[in-house]
Amino acid sequence: MIKIHDFKGFPNPMRVRIALAEKGIADQVQFVTVDVPGGEHKQAAFLAKNPNAAVPVLELEDGTYISECTAITEYIDALAGEPVLTGKSARERAVIHMMQRRAEIGLLDAVASYFHHATPGLGPQIETYQNHEWGEKNRERALAGMRYFDGLLESRSYLAGDHFSMADITAFAGMAFAAFAKIDVPATLKHLHAWHGRVASRPSIASA
Amino acid sequence: MIKIHDFKGFPNPMRVRIALAEKGIADQVQFVTVDVPGGEHKQAAFLAKNPNAAVPVLELEDGTYISECTAITEYIDALAGEPVLTGKSARERAVIHMMQRRAEIGLLDAVASYFHHATPGLGPQIETYQNHEWGEKNRERALAGMRYFDGLLESRSYLAGDHFSMADITAFAGMAFAAFAKIDVPATLKHLHAWHGRVASRPSIASA
Repeated sequence: MIKIHDFKGFPNPMRVRIALAEKGIADQVQFVTVDVPGGEHKQAAFLAKNPNAAVPVLELEDGTYISECTAITEYIDALAGEPVLTGKSARERAVIHMMQRRAEIGLLDAVASYFHHATPGLGPQIETYQNHEWGEKNRERALAGMRYFDGLLESRSYLAGDHFSMADITAFAGMAFAAFAKIDVPATLKHLHAWHGRVASRPSIASA
Repeated sequence: MIKIHDFKGFPNPMRVRIALAEKGIADQVQFVTVDVPGGEHKQAAFLAKNPNAAVPVLELEDGTYISECTAITEYIDALAGEPVLTGKSARERAVIHMMQRRAEIGLLDAVASYFHHATPGLGPQIETYQNHEWGEKNRERALAGMRYFDGLLESRSYLAGDHFSMADITAFAGMAFAAFAKIDVPATLKHLHAWHGRVASRPSIASA
């Protein structure tokens, strides 16, 4: 049985849990809790699994560890049929990978940088380097990202077009992280709010 | 004919040009120069192609613009046969995507952050926001990334295992950027140097 080493409720673990739920295979995975609030992800045993000290990590049956959500999602997407989260045609795959990366750069990673640099984050034991100005700059970037996605969603239902994909999962986790970090989403971004409602109503979300 | 909007010699354009050369299809692409040193990538006409103001951008025959190198490389990889740059099996694809992301985080993007924040970068007209301390922190991260890859390459020929892949292309572009930004690679990292020599000797590199 494959394993997911993670911490439930955190943004990146959420991405992989939503992907598993979308594919209907969450019950075929063993979840192993990593005590991120306690700093377990920065200790040697976990660093051997992922030197970047981040959850989630997928452990294959042959003992291979796969980190980075795009890589894990690619693997999960190949395990079962519909919905296809990473695209079918070369064009679909390219658009989805582009939009998923934009959702990281402009939203999820920007919010994470704000949280870890400009707020107490996970506390002084874990946040051993903070650059407050960089954190504040990334709050601006997250808000710019929200405005960009709002404009995009004026003319499409999901980030990569007509279908829910890996890119929407990344952006949804980014919005969840923004709420946790108390970055308010401007009420004027009505297309973004409507998209958020559509995504939040998917059964996979409630379970993740 | 598909088009690549880029600026020859810059790190991210290099990634896509190497991928095209590896696949043997560089002559099936029209290259369009974007005057990045002159700031063309920050003007409205280019931002309509890529709101993140970065080259390269792939333009498909139907007018779709694809940015982000992973997305472009996925598309290119589907256009022709060997060598497969993004993996064949689900496991291979997962390992390659993981290592390509590690090469971005730990090397290419770290060097870019050093260059754009802690050096004059592309000059005051283009570098409108700099955070010197963040830049210096990323120089440390790039050196840590080099040490990580050196350790990895002690027991494998390429970043994702026995075969050259998209991950090696990203790391090679990161090393080229490090040289340009005058981040010296410690001589003690002999496995990294040996890998660099192996990759540099590929015909695709000389042409990119």
